[in-house]
Amino acid sequence: MSKPKVFEKPAGVRDYLPFAVDKLRAIERRVLDCMAGWGYRQIMTPTMEYYDTVGVASSTSDQKLFKLLNNRGTTMVLRSDMTAPIARVVSSLLKEEPLPLRLSYHANVFRAIEEEAGKEAEFFQTGVELVGDDSADADAEVIALAVASLQAAGVKSFKIAVGHVGFLNGLLAEAVPGRDDIRQALKEGLLHRDYVGYREMLAELSLSQQQHEELEGILRLRGGKEVCGQALELSADPLAQASVKHLSQVWDALEDFGVAEHVMIDLTMIGDFSYYTGMTFEGYAAELGFPVCSGGRYDNLLQQFGRPAPATGFSLKTNRILDGVHGLDSEAELPVVLQYDVVNRKRAFAEAERLRQEGKSVLMRHVASLGDLLASGQGGERRPGPLGPLYGDILTFVSF
Amino acid sequence: MSKPKVFEKPAGVRDYLPFAVDKLRAIERRVLDCMAGWGYRQIMTPTMEYYDTVGVASSTSDQKLFKLLNNRGTTMVLRSDMTAPIARVVSSLLKEEPLPLRLSYHANVFRAIEEEAGKEAEFFQTGVELVGDDSADADAEVIALAVASLQAAGVKSFKIAVGHVGFLNGLLAEAVPGRDDIRQALKEGLLHRDYVGYREMLAELSLSQQQHEELEGILRLRGGKEVCGQALELSADPLAQASVKHLSQVWDALEDFGVAEHVMIDLTMIGDFSYYTGMTFEGYAAELGFPVCSGGRYDNLLQQFGRPAPATGFSLKTNRILDGVHGLDSEAELPVVLQYDVVNRKRAFAEAERLRQEGKSVLMRHVASLGDLLASGQGGERRPGPLGPLYGDILTFVSF
Repeated sequence: MSKPKVFEKPAGVRDYLPFAVDKLRAIERRVLDCMAGWGYRQIMTPTMEYYDTVGVASSTSDQKLFKLLNNRGTTMVLRSDMTAPIARVVSSLLKEEPLPLRLSYHANVFRAIEEEAGKEAEFFQTGVELVGDDSADADAEVIALAVASLQAAGVKSFKIAVGHVGFLNGLLAEAVPGRDDIRQALKEGLLHRDYVGYREMLAELSLSQQQHEELEGILRLRGGKEVCGQALELSADPLAQASVKHLSQVWDALEDFGVAEHVMIDLTMIGDFSYYTGMTFEGYAAELGFPVCSGGRYDNLLQQFGRPAPATGFSLKTNRILDGVHGLDSEAELPVVLQYDVVNRKRAFAEAERLRQEGKSVLMRHVASLGDLLASGQGGERRPGPLGPLYGDILTFVSF
Repeated sequence: MSKPKVFEKPAGVRDYLPFAVDKLRAIERRVLDCMAGWGYRQIMTPTMEYYDTVGVASSTSDQKLFKLLNNRGTTMVLRSDMTAPIARVVSSLLKEEPLPLRLSYHANVFRAIEEEAGKEAEFFQTGVELVGDDSADADAEVIALAVASLQAAGVKSFKIAVGHVGFLNGLLAEAVPGRDDIRQALKEGLLHRDYVGYREMLAELSLSQQQHEELEGILRLRGGKEVCGQALELSADPLAQASVKHLSQVWDALEDFGVAEHVMIDLTMIGDFSYYTGMTFEGYAAELGFPVCSGGRYDNLLQQFGRPAPATGFSLKTNRILDGVHGLDSEAELPVVLQYDVVNRKRAFAEAERLRQEGKSVLMRHVASLGDLLASGQGGERRPGPLGPLYGDILTFVSF
């Protein structure tokens, strides 16, 4: 007996069956509506971009980019995020549009390699970019909008951890000057939240007591606004000081926004995108155990596309929310099944149309003879499949 | 003076700016809602599929497929339609689900080469597949749903031309037996609606008068149900006869559906997908001048994925509708701009939140000092850009 040939989808990508689509679409719609409520206008960009421009600017490591050649032999990538494509559009099609610009998106993005680790090679992000505003209020706005978006997506309990790339860079430059390699290793430890490894590295370095205290002290810089005061004492480096002062202003604005309860300052945090230049943040959901959103300020990316401008933004990790959030039940109404035979087909179609006008979903099922169907007692069977009941009431259309 | 570097999007793909996204999203939502009203449940599949299975089954010519390699060196394609991926899902994840299955989708698909001709390499399709029903009623249902979908998308005046692959195949087999090459050439002529070329080919062939009349007669087989009677007289071939009888039943059901006024029979029509096995159709909009939808029956595709089943379906050419249909105005409300300074920030945020609860879109604009702004007369300027006015009223939040 030969084994039947199995037709699989590729590794790392997925099919979304109807109930999952209902939920994904509900999250998409609610979050985009929320962003529209904050004045963000939605844009869409192509799946394929040039490797040399958007691919390189995307900050996704080269080996994680899906590459292909177009007909002209030019290397293309499947987009790995939406920030770089939007920077391209702001600098080209929208170059006459005055800043600041508020843009939103919901898009699938692609990362190779991750499929090896069981991670998805194609997944959805829903996010915003606020381009052309370097203020603390702009940073606070995107954090407050991240809070509102997570709530709109049905994430019940979460915390947004806010850090600043400049604080860590300033403090490390002061504590281990001239040692890029060490600074990089320490930052890697913090990025992966490997605090044990971080402490071991500190122990192995020949540090003065003051250096050691500074670098060890970072690990305690997590909490409310009081952390800003502690941080100002920990490092006198001008970049570190300016960064903390900016974060302090962000916090004040978040209090005015009424969302400070959802936010903590965490100066150990580094965003995982190399283009971040200022404030960075990540959202953690109590019910999920992994980040559900990430964002930050990137003031140098736009100039790579010829329109220098500060920018800040975030994206929800929409798939993680889809898989992890419960209670966002399908909003789709199960269709009524309307059974007919050729004798009453015309009136059955008219009745279906009438029900649709009322907002009902009506599925037509033609049968050879309603008389036979009714006599056999099959006039009203439901059809539960592995997906659960796909259909609601069965109406058998009898002439009247 | 050096020319500034231009960062372009790749040829054949496009960016959708906010007003275009509003319109595309409105079409998407209205059409999917319409399909849901007919009991079709939405599914989503990955952008990448295996070349060997879905790529080969897709009926897109090999040179038009975008190919790339995954990490394991397996050839992948960017999907070129949704029919083959859905056939894969129906035969795998949904294999326990009883037939018939009604599925809908809205998805971007990819075709290489066409970019050369100025056609789009990435575009949207919105469609349905009805799997597991070989009846004329099923064919009529998808045609009637295509009518309803075009209406939902805002296409005002259109005609659906319905043909049958079997009629042409039967008639050609009878008229020019044993000459695959000639049959293929004649079908190509009909496919491209090159009736002049078709007549020239007929003139060059050594045909009996009867053969010539049959093949020439096809060109007149366009109109209402009366065409079915003419077709039955034109060819006695059993396949041609059975095909016309099926079309005649489809027409009767379309009359009961109340949509026959939008439909014409056109037996010169061949669908452009090689997997079509029966009824095929195309929709033409008076205002557009090119097909806005196409569909047909494909009873042999599912068996390629291990679950033999008849199937029928269609897809709207969503981009053509987007570009061609007018009068479907943006449904997005322009955001109110609420200007504030730090003094009244907290109350301004609260007011913004209140307005959002009312369904308004509110964009926050922080300014250094409202006093200065009001004194300079800039308290209420609008900002029309190349996209037209992106924002509505300007509210300046003054403490009260």
